Amino acid sequence: MPKISTTLLSTIKTPEDVRTLPEADLPRLAQEIREELIRTISRTGGHLGPNLGVVELTIALHRSFSTPTDKLLFDVSHQGYVHKMLTGRADRLDTIRQYGGLNGFLLRTESEHDAYGAGHAGTALSAGLGMATARDLRGSNEHVVVVAGDAALTCGVSFEALNNVASATRRLIVVLNDNKWSISKNVGAVSNYLSKITAHPTFAHLHEQAARLVESLGGKGARDLAHKVESGVKHLLLPSVIFEDLGFRYYGPIDGHDTALLTRTFEFLKTQNEPVILHILTTKGKGYSPALEQPDKFHGLGKFQPETGETEPASSPTYSQIFGTRLADFADHNNRLVAITAAMGGGTGLSSFQTRHPTRYYDVGIAEEHAALFACGLATQGFKPFLSIYSTFMQRAYDMIIHDIALQKLNVALCMDRAGLSGDDGPTHHGLFDIGFLRHVPNLIFMQPKDEEEFADMLWTMTHYHAGPTAIRYPRGTGTGTQPKEHPQLLEIGQSEVLRHGRRVLLVGLGNMVAMAEQTADILEAQGIDAAVINARWIKPLDRQTIEFFARAAEVVCTFEDHVLANGFGCALMEAFAESRIATPVIRIGWPDNFIEHGNAEFLRAKYGLTAGAAAEKILAELHHPEANTNANPAA
Amino acid sequence: MPKISTTLLSTIKTPEDVRTLPEADLPRLAQEIREELIRTISRTGGHLGPNLGVVELTIALHRSFSTPTDKLLFDVSHQGYVHKMLTGRADRLDTIRQYGGLNGFLLRTESEHDAYGAGHAGTALSAGLGMATARDLRGSNEHVVVVAGDAALTCGVSFEALNNVASATRRLIVVLNDNKWSISKNVGAVSNYLSKITAHPTFAHLHEQAARLVESLGGKGARDLAHKVESGVKHLLLPSVIFEDLGFRYYGPIDGHDTALLTRTFEFLKTQNEPVILHILTTKGKGYSPALEQPDKFHGLGKFQPETGETEPASSPTYSQIFGTRLADFADHNNRLVAITAAMGGGTGLSSFQTRHPTRYYDVGIAEEHAALFACGLATQGFKPFLSIYSTFMQRAYDMIIHDIALQKLNVALCMDRAGLSGDDGPTHHGLFDIGFLRHVPNLIFMQPKDEEEFADMLWTMTHYHAGPTAIRYPRGTGTGTQPKEHPQLLEIGQSEVLRHGRRVLLVGLGNMVAMAEQTADILEAQGIDAAVINARWIKPLDRQTIEFFARAAEVVCTFEDHVLANGFGCALMEAFAESRIATPVIRIGWPDNFIEHGNAEFLRAKYGLTAGAAAEKILAELHHPEANTNANPAA
Repeated sequence: MPKISTTLLSTIKTPEDVRTLPEADLPRLAQEIREELIRTISRTGGHLGPNLGVVELTIALHRSFSTPTDKLLFDVSHQGYVHKMLTGRADRLDTIRQYGGLNGFLLRTESEHDAYGAGHAGTALSAGLGMATARDLRGSNEHVVVVAGDAALTCGVSFEALNNVASATRRLIVVLNDNKWSISKNVGAVSNYLSKITAHPTFAHLHEQAARLVESLGGKGARDLAHKVESGVKHLLLPSVIFEDLGFRYYGPIDGHDTALLTRTFEFLKTQNEPVILHILTTKGKGYSPALEQPDKFHGLGKFQPETGETEPASSPTYSQIFGTRLADFADHNNRLVAITAAMGGGTGLSSFQTRHPTRYYDVGIAEEHAALFACGLATQGFKPFLSIYSTFMQRAYDMIIHDIALQKLNVALCMDRAGLSGDDGPTHHGLFDIGFLRHVPNLIFMQPKDEEEFADMLWTMTHYHAGPTAIRYPRGTGTGTQPKEHPQLLEIGQSEVLRHGRRVLLVGLGNMVAMAEQTADILEAQGIDAAVINARWIKPLDRQTIEFFARAAEVVCTFEDHVLANGFGCALMEAFAESRIATPVIRIGWPDNFIEHGNAEFLRAKYGLTAGAAAEKILAELHHPEANTNANPAA
Repeated sequence: MPKISTTLLSTIKTPEDVRTLPEADLPRLAQEIREELIRTISRTGGHLGPNLGVVELTIALHRSFSTPTDKLLFDVSHQGYVHKMLTGRADRLDTIRQYGGLNGFLLRTESEHDAYGAGHAGTALSAGLGMATARDLRGSNEHVVVVAGDAALTCGVSFEALNNVASATRRLIVVLNDNKWSISKNVGAVSNYLSKITAHPTFAHLHEQAARLVESLGGKGARDLAHKVESGVKHLLLPSVIFEDLGFRYYGPIDGHDTALLTRTFEFLKTQNEPVILHILTTKGKGYSPALEQPDKFHGLGKFQPETGETEPASSPTYSQIFGTRLADFADHNNRLVAITAAMGGGTGLSSFQTRHPTRYYDVGIAEEHAALFACGLATQGFKPFLSIYSTFMQRAYDMIIHDIALQKLNVALCMDRAGLSGDDGPTHHGLFDIGFLRHVPNLIFMQPKDEEEFADMLWTMTHYHAGPTAIRYPRGTGTGTQPKEHPQLLEIGQSEVLRHGRRVLLVGLGNMVAMAEQTADILEAQGIDAAVINARWIKPLDRQTIEFFARAAEVVCTFEDHVLANGFGCALMEAFAESRIATPVIRIGWPDNFIEHGNAEFLRAKYGLTAGAAAEKILAELHHPEANTNANPAA
C-alpha cells in the first residue's frame, strides 16, 4: 500500500481544527483517517474493525460538541482511535499499544479529551449519567454524550443505567452505534428487536430522504435549523417503544456514515430537554474489504499484511485453541458437558466447540453475571458447565461465584483465559487479581498449568470432578509449546509436581512461571547452590505436604506467580507455613501493588523484576544475609 | 394475640396435601398461615411483609405445580417462608434464623423442594433459564417457574436473563410479583412503566371480570379448561409491549391474592409453548395493619410486639444510624458530598441523609454495578460520592471497583455496612470476604474502626481525602457503644493506635475485633504475660512501622479479624513481615475456610474459636512450645 498524503489529517492538532474544516473536506478527512488506521494497525495490532466503523461518527461528534468542556464517553473505548487522532494524538498513533505509547483504550491520564477510561463494556452510560447529574447539581451547561455499541445493550449494567436516566437528568445524549455485532452473533432479544426496527419498511427509503433533508438544510446556521430539523427528523425516524418506555426520546435509525446528517442531528439533539437515544447504523470495518469479510477477526487482532489482511499463524496452538478443541473432544463422550461464554466465543477458543456441539454451546452476550447463574441452573440439573471468561471479565461475575456457585457447591468449571499479564492491552485487561479474589472462596478447587500439556490434563481432571466448583487460570497466547497427550491424564487434586530436588533453596512456580523457577534454579546451580523446583499446580488446595517438606529443609523459599503479590499465591504459602510453624523466609516474585501499564510482556516483566536473574539475586542476597541461617527452622 | 387453632396448616406435611385440599378451605389455610407468620416472626425476627404478600401465590403455585419435579425458584427467597411451611417445614418455622434451625432464605441443602438458594436479588431468572435449558437438553418435561419481585427488575442481571430467554427455551414461566416496592421507592423507569400498566383504564374492572371468569369455570378439570381459560384470560389481560419485545408472552396484571384465579391461570400457562410472564399485583404485609402502614420497617425486622408491631429501640445508635446522620452533618458544610445506595437506603442509615439532602441522595435500585459507575461519573466532576452498600452486595460491584474506581483513582468512598459476620441472615449475607477481594486492589485506602467514635472520625477523614478511592468496613448493629465526638477528628492515614504496651506478645486487632484483642491481653496479663495491643485501623496502607516495631520484639503476634483467614488481615501482616525479615510467628483469629451458617453471632464466634479465651490458649501454647524462643527474631 503506497504511503498516502495525509495533508488534511496532519493539520488537525485539536478538535477545534475539526470544527473549522470546510464541510466539503470531510470525506477526504475520513478517507485519510481510514488509510492511516489500516497502515498503522497493520504494524501495531489493535481494534481495526470498530474504528473503521466510527470514522464519520467521531468526526461529527467533534464538529458538534466541544471537548473537553462537553463530555464524550465511548463505551469500552476500543473504538477510540479516531477520537485520539482528532484530539492531538494522530502523530503518535503508531505508538499505540506499545510501552510508553498511546494506550489502546481511552485513558483520563492520556488526554483531557478522554472524559472516561474503559476497556470493559457497559460502563459508559452509568458514568455519563453521573457526569450529567454532576452538571445539573452544579448548574453548568455542558453536554454529556455517550457512544455505546449494540453489544453494550447485552450488559445488565447498561440496563441498570437506562432504568435510572429519566429520574436523574433531563439532558443526556446517547448514541447507539448499531453495527449489527450482536445481530450477526444472534445474541438475545434486544438484538432481534434492533433488527426488527431496522427492517421496518419505512427504513427502506430512509437514506434517500435523509440525504434530501440534509441537502435542503445545508449551509445554514445550526441554531436557526434546530426547529426545521426537529420536524424533519421526527418525521423521518421511527419511534421505538422500548426506549420510550424507559423514559428516552428515541431517534433513528439513521446512516452512521453520513457526517453531514449526523452533525445536523447532533445540533438538533443538543437543543433537547429530555434524555435522547440516537440509533445509528454503521458498518464495522467500513472501507477495508478484509475487515468487512471477516468482522470477527478484524474486531481486534495482531499485526497483519495491509494489502491482504493476512496474519501470521501462531507457532503452536494457543491455550485458547487447546481449550476449545479439547473441550469439544471431551464433550464427544460426555453429554453432560456444556460450554458457556459471554461474547468471547472466538477469543476463548470455543468456536470449535460451537461447531461440533452447537446445542451445548451458549454465548449469552456481554453478560458475565447471567452466564455464571445460567451455569448454576444447568449444574443443579446434573450438567457440567464450563464457563469460559477472561480473568479480568470474571470480576463481573464475582458475586455469583461466591453466592451461587461456591455456596451451593455447584459443579461449575470457571475457566479464566488471559490470566496474568495481558501485555499490549494494558491495565483494563491484565488478569492479575484472580488469586486475590478467589483463593478465599470456600469450596473452590483452583489450579494453573505449567504448560499446554498439563493444561489439557487439568481440563480433563475438571470434567471428572463432581464435588463442587473448580477454577483454572491460564495465560494469553502460547506457553512453552508442549503438545498435549492424545489421551489426557487425570491429575490428583492437591498434588504438586517436584521437578527438581535440592536442599538449600526451594523454588515454587505457579503455572506459566514454573519456567522462570527452573531458569532460576539453573542460575543458582551454576553458583553451586542446589535448589528444589516444585510446580505447584494447585493454588487451592495447596500441596502443603510436599511444599512444606522441602521448605523445612531449605534456607529460603521463593515463589513465582503471574499475579500481584498482595493476596497472591505466595501468601497461600505464608499462611500454610505460619500454621505449620515453618520460619523459613519467603521471597515472592510477582507484580507490585499498582496497575501495570500496557506494553510488551517480556519488557514489563523485566521492568518489574519478574525475571530469573532478579529472583536469583534476591535469593543469593538472602543466603548471604548475616542472619540467614537463623531463619532456617531448626526443627527441619 | 390468642393462640390460633392451626388444624388445617398442621395437616399439610407435603405439597401433595396442598393440592388435595378442597378449594373452599384455601382462604382458611391462607388465614392460618398469616397468623402463624405474624406469631412466629414477632419472636424470631425476619421478612414478615414480603411473606404476608405471597400467601395466596405460594398456595396457588403448590396447587398447580408439583415440586420437587417441577422447579420453583424464588428470587432473593426472603419470601420463601410460606413455601417452607407448605413443604414440610411448618413445624420448624419457629426455629427460623436461629442456629441449627431453618434458614431465613431457601437452601438446596434444607429441602428437595428448594430448587435454588438465594439471598441476593436478581439471580432466579438466570438460574431458572439454566434449569429450563437443562430440561430441554435432556428431553424431560417438568415446569420451571420463577417468582421475582418488581424490585428484581432493577437488577441488571435480570435484564441479561430476559435478553437470553427467548433464544434459549420455549418453556419458562415467570411470575412478576409486583408489590409496588419499587414504585413506592420511585426507583427507575421500569417501576414507572409497571405503574402505567396498572393504571390502565381497562384494569379498573379487572377484578370483577376475573372473578366472574373463574366462577364460570369452577369445578371442572384443568385439562378441559385450558382452552376456555386461554380465550378468557387473553381477553382479560393487557398486552405489555416491553416484555413482548423481549420475546415473552405477557399476561396481566391480575390479583395476586385470588388463589382460584391464580391457580386457573397457572393451569393455562402450563400448556403454553413460549416463555410467559404473568404480572400479578400483591400487597406487602397483607392482613397485618402495622406491616401495611410501615412496609419498609416490616420488610425485614427483628422481634416485635405482634399486637402493635412495636420493636424495641437499640440501646445506642447503630453504625448505620451514625453513618447516615454524620454524613448528613458533613454534607451541610460540603456541597460536593453526595450519597448513593442500591436499594439499601433504610438499612444503611441513609434515610436521614435523604431527608436532609434530597437532591444529593441517590437510590438507584438493586443495581450495585450502576451505583458504582454512577459514583465514578460524579467523582470525575469533582464530587465526593459515598457509595453505601452492604459488604456482601459490594461483591456485585467488584469489577467496577477495580476497572473504574481504582484504576482511574477516583474519589469514591466505598462504605461497607454489615462487614463481618451478619449472624441470623446466614451465609448469603455475611460480609466475610471484603479484605480478600479488596486489599490487593491498587490505589485503595482501606480501614475499619474499632468503635462508633472512631467510625465518625474515619468518615470525617474520608471526606478530606482527595487522592483516590477509600473503603471502610463496619459491622452490623452497634459496637462498644462509644459516643462519637461532637467534632470528629482527622486520623492520619496509615497510622495505627497503640492501646497497650507490652513485650512478649503483640495483639493486633482490626475493627470490632480490637475489643477481643484487649480481652485477650487481660487474660494473658492475669498469667503474668505482658502483651501489647494495637488497634490496626488501616488494612491498607498497613502501619508497618508501628506493628513491625512491636513484632520484632515479641515472641508471638496474634491478629484478630471478623473476616475469613484466607487472604485476610493477618495475611497483610505476614506479607509485611516477610519483606522485613521478621520471623516472629503469627497466630490468626478469624473465620475458617468454609461458609458460616446462620445463627447468633456470639454463639458462632465461640463455635469457630473467635474468642479471647481461644486466642489466649493458642498464644500460651506458642509461648510454651519447645521451639518457641527460636522463632523470636534475634535482630530485634
